[in-house]
Amino acid sequence: MYALIMAGGVGTRLWPRSRQRSPKQLLDLASEFTMLQETFSRLTPLMPPANVYVVTGAAYASEVARQLPEVPRSNIIAEPFGRNTAPAIGLGSLYIRRREAQAVMAAVSADHLVQKKQEFVQVMRSAAVLAEQGYLVTIGIRPARPETGYGYIELDHPLGIPVEYPGFRVARFTEKPDAATAERFVAGGKHLWNAGMFVWRVDVILDAIRQHLPGLSQALEEIDRAIGTPKERDTLERVWPSIDEISIDVGVMERAGNVAVIPADLGWSDVGTWASLAEILPADEANNVVINGEHIGVGTSGSLLYGNKRLIATIGLKDLIVVDTDDVVLICPKDRAQDVRSLVAKLKQDQRHEYL
Amino acid sequence: MYALIMAGGVGTRLWPRSRQRSPKQLLDLASEFTMLQETFSRLTPLMPPANVYVVTGAAYASEVARQLPEVPRSNIIAEPFGRNTAPAIGLGSLYIRRREAQAVMAAVSADHLVQKKQEFVQVMRSAAVLAEQGYLVTIGIRPARPETGYGYIELDHPLGIPVEYPGFRVARFTEKPDAATAERFVAGGKHLWNAGMFVWRVDVILDAIRQHLPGLSQALEEIDRAIGTPKERDTLERVWPSIDEISIDVGVMERAGNVAVIPADLGWSDVGTWASLAEILPADEANNVVINGEHIGVGTSGSLLYGNKRLIATIGLKDLIVVDTDDVVLICPKDRAQDVRSLVAKLKQDQRHEYL
Repeated sequence: MYALIMAGGVGTRLWPRSRQRSPKQLLDLASEFTMLQETFSRLTPLMPPANVYVVTGAAYASEVARQLPEVPRSNIIAEPFGRNTAPAIGLGSLYIRRREAQAVMAAVSADHLVQKKQEFVQVMRSAAVLAEQGYLVTIGIRPARPETGYGYIELDHPLGIPVEYPGFRVARFTEKPDAATAERFVAGGKHLWNAGMFVWRVDVILDAIRQHLPGLSQALEEIDRAIGTPKERDTLERVWPSIDEISIDVGVMERAGNVAVIPADLGWSDVGTWASLAEILPADEANNVVINGEHIGVGTSGSLLYGNKRLIATIGLKDLIVVDTDDVVLICPKDRAQDVRSLVAKLKQDQRHEYL
Repeated sequence: MYALIMAGGVGTRLWPRSRQRSPKQLLDLASEFTMLQETFSRLTPLMPPANVYVVTGAAYASEVARQLPEVPRSNIIAEPFGRNTAPAIGLGSLYIRRREAQAVMAAVSADHLVQKKQEFVQVMRSAAVLAEQGYLVTIGIRPARPETGYGYIELDHPLGIPVEYPGFRVARFTEKPDAATAERFVAGGKHLWNAGMFVWRVDVILDAIRQHLPGLSQALEEIDRAIGTPKERDTLERVWPSIDEISIDVGVMERAGNVAVIPADLGWSDVGTWASLAEILPADEANNVVINGEHIGVGTSGSLLYGNKRLIATIGLKDLIVVDTDDVVLICPKDRAQDVRSLVAKLKQDQRHEYL
């Protein structure tokens, strides 16, 4: 088995910890290891490090290499710039296909949290069986709450293939729903969170790209012909700007016929915002999540206290986020966690590069 | 004219800036000067520095001397420990009486804010005229809001003594009222805030202490006999523990007959809490008060952002207090500002001396 870790992106909504030069996946956000390192260590029961590939931004490649010394340097693939997941997956697949034409590969995000590592390994093993048989397999997370920030996958009938974690046909993919629809999805029991976690054969995904994203496919084959030649870098930089930005979900999974989903409960979060980080981590007796540093509270509850070196002292806070870093203190209600993006946009507009 | 600056106390509710070793009056809380220095500079139009005396805790005496180099070292009087304002004023008065038996002296707190410095000087000059004639003069602040955290002074008829800021007889002193009573006081127009700011002749106040606090008076005379002798320090330390803790308001002003009040609007605050500091300082266009450092906000209003070295970034906060220091970040709603005391008590109970 092979894996492609997608390590592009910045994770803007996790500012002030995420910065342009130290994006979310390269941070030790929820443990002593970085999210990239956690992602890598989840995969190691499934494959040797030499089978792990990483697609990342050119600016991050050397830090990725530093954080993953077991991964061969040549497995770290630098995109000239981000074009969303379909081009990133296509590019990574080219390298894996060169190793093994029908390799089963997982494609996972570097910046998601998976708390149940054992289940993750078992689910991936079941997914690999389905992938062998030609399915584009996605992992669907059983929803813990009517989250409006995620896309949903509606289950159809079981595939009937005997594996530990059985797969299902997909009735349809749904973009982020409104609150009422999300409530209905969770109550109905037929919808799963789309976690953007995939297993397939490399020839099957490249075929699907050829069928559903022919422009991307042509660009990829042009790049493929240059891989391993002196023209590799130049070709990539020349071709990449012509590629359309599109996700693998929208570009391939929603259009393909051979899609399967395995429902699973993995303690998963995309950790898109400080609020979603708080959702998934264990809370203390006052229902506060305290990470790093120390908190002393009088009547504070439901809050995320993300410390640094200072004591965070609070009185009577409810559902608030506090993030302390060396140069910024962020304070924000949980239900405004999405608006960290606006704050960063404001800093960008004000040219406050020291904080970006 | 003489002055006695009362510089005891810690200002616990202004934690984490106020600490046991650096109490409120010794901090640059609202300007580049410390509150003690601001208090001193308000007095200098009225008297030479050699006429300014300071009563403070033994632990703070050398820092007081450092902050007020113009004040003779012998004018800085160290109490063995705090016993509230009546003993502090009595002790300071002994030293002033030795300079001039019928000196007019002001007694003011080192940790209050007075924004209208010009008016302060003029009001003190009027007060000095009344004091010359034997009145115990207190300055009453016209209430800006129905504050329940201050005591009130009810006006009686005018004294009829021709001065720029005329004095009135006092009908009664009232302790901190409930909200309804405070509303009524402000609406009625006859009540003033008791600012704890006094002017009197030193012989008149010591006479009043003899009449209303005979125990304190005896102790003071015993101390007075030792002043300037080798026994001064020992006598003070032996006598002080026997003195009852009592304020000058309760012990003398509420009981005396020769009390006068001058109503004034001085931009005064006792700066007892972070909320009261926010009340008195100018707000920006979003109605936030930003002190030190820098704030970037999205939809934040009515808040106090007390910075240090870090950027304070906020989203959607309303009426919140944020105080950033080198080792603590405090976050607290304005209407819970009194509870900083509970937080400090909790730290004391937990023996977290590094934060006290």
